[in-house]
Amino acid sequence: MYFTKEQFQTYQEQGFLLLNQYLSPDEVEIMKGELPALFAEDSPGKVLEKDKNTVRAIHASHTRNEVFERLSRHPRLVEPVMRLLGSEVYIYQFKINAKAAFSGDVWQWHQDYIFWRKEDGLPTARIINVMVLLDDMNEFNGPFFLIPGSHKEGMIDTSEKKLTNVSKNPTDSEDGSSWKANFEANLKYSLNPETVADLVSNYGVTSIKAPAGSVLFFDSNVAHASPCNISPFTRSIAIITYNSVENIPFPIENPRPEFLVSRDYRPVEPLAEDSLLLKSLV
Amino acid sequence: MYFTKEQFQTYQEQGFLLLNQYLSPDEVEIMKGELPALFAEDSPGKVLEKDKNTVRAIHASHTRNEVFERLSRHPRLVEPVMRLLGSEVYIYQFKINAKAAFSGDVWQWHQDYIFWRKEDGLPTARIINVMVLLDDMNEFNGPFFLIPGSHKEGMIDTSEKKLTNVSKNPTDSEDGSSWKANFEANLKYSLNPETVADLVSNYGVTSIKAPAGSVLFFDSNVAHASPCNISPFTRSIAIITYNSVENIPFPIENPRPEFLVSRDYRPVEPLAEDSLLLKSLV
Repeated sequence: MYFTKEQFQTYQEQGFLLLNQYLSPDEVEIMKGELPALFAEDSPGKVLEKDKNTVRAIHASHTRNEVFERLSRHPRLVEPVMRLLGSEVYIYQFKINAKAAFSGDVWQWHQDYIFWRKEDGLPTARIINVMVLLDDMNEFNGPFFLIPGSHKEGMIDTSEKKLTNVSKNPTDSEDGSSWKANFEANLKYSLNPETVADLVSNYGVTSIKAPAGSVLFFDSNVAHASPCNISPFTRSIAIITYNSVENIPFPIENPRPEFLVSRDYRPVEPLAEDSLLLKSLV
Repeated sequence: MYFTKEQFQTYQEQGFLLLNQYLSPDEVEIMKGELPALFAEDSPGKVLEKDKNTVRAIHASHTRNEVFERLSRHPRLVEPVMRLLGSEVYIYQFKINAKAAFSGDVWQWHQDYIFWRKEDGLPTARIINVMVLLDDMNEFNGPFFLIPGSHKEGMIDTSEKKLTNVSKNPTDSEDGSSWKANFEANLKYSLNPETVADLVSNYGVTSIKAPAGSVLFFDSNVAHASPCNISPFTRSIAIITYNSVENIPFPIENPRPEFLVSRDYRPVEPLAEDSLLLKSLV
């Protein structure tokens, strides 16, 4: 049991739960040690910032990197999620957002579920995000903003916007990377300003400020965003999205790449508590 | 006497002093009432955000608007500044930065004095900024970041950068508005990332979070910046820059427009304490 009864209630009520320093400094250090090589890699799920140089996000590192594979099976992440979703779970998506010092750009206000519904045919919001802070997140380095309780609104359908990124980059359709529009600063299903203003007026707004190793569990319908990082402090996070094995996407035409929406539906088997610390990594 | 002895010391030590709710809610309301008309006006010192629509900044409103003229002569602003500078003062520059909800863009890390030195021939940093918060400034709406004590470094000469804005906008030189490059998100004399990282490492970093009506006095060599505003809360401020009458700029070729660097060197005469509240505005 990693959550108290009160913590489960808080999660249900607010749509998120922050656990301060839930993973140890040693675990954080091991994970951070992997980032330079992963960011340097020319992997298919790599997204750059507008400067075309700084890494914004990488995807599916758990399929290529032993440390992040172990993170994705960490019992402190997986067991509470199974309990919250009431079933076994599989890894739907795994990403690392870099939010680099001086360069990390905005993530506009959005809910996650609408992307997965519209792009991947995900039947319900029976899916949970787990964000692992790989750096301290503070008021200066583009912290995560949340509208607590906004998950109660369910999926808010936004009219699909014209994507300036797509028209600006004629190679997008040629190299099959139109999916990138969902990961750049100009998000496809962002919430419009009036909706955000209403939500904040009704529910308020909060931010996550916590040391590295803290973990945020959050509902896929909680509205969230993060501002640019103009500080000297890089703010990297890993986000593992666990889907219920009873919530497999409908078959759709032209599914997004495997690194965005995994078709490996095998249930995650949690490892032992100290697995991330083991030296004998393959 | 508006500052205590301790407050004067704090200002000298940190390079800034924040006075919470230094002006009254009634005074704020009167000033805010003027903004829609001023923002709508097609004034020469108007700067737009990258969306070419939202107002980013307007200049010299104190020369056209009775309320802001009275603000610029408010004894709570002028008297401490005269004391800090040890002389009479005149208004060097007056601007209102809008930092609009959902649209207000970054101000990169910079010191102010270098702009005035390089562009206007200002002999010394014997000049003070007074920022009046016209809205609450909070962690969500692009608050002002400061490096306390960084004024002790004096003017840090940055190598002049190539301005992407200028090359992108061929009309700049034609309509004589190349000055705008100093007011857009891509600042001409911004501090480079290595310098900012060093300063933050040596001095730390802080942010201003205070209700409307609060006033920040700050040194022209304190390094500062502000991130984008992705929140539903507009964050407008007025900044009045008072120069010592003993620090008149050298004559230079091609001076910037009057609304950026006033040639009206007449000393400011402070008004009575309640002047902003008077109903009989002209």
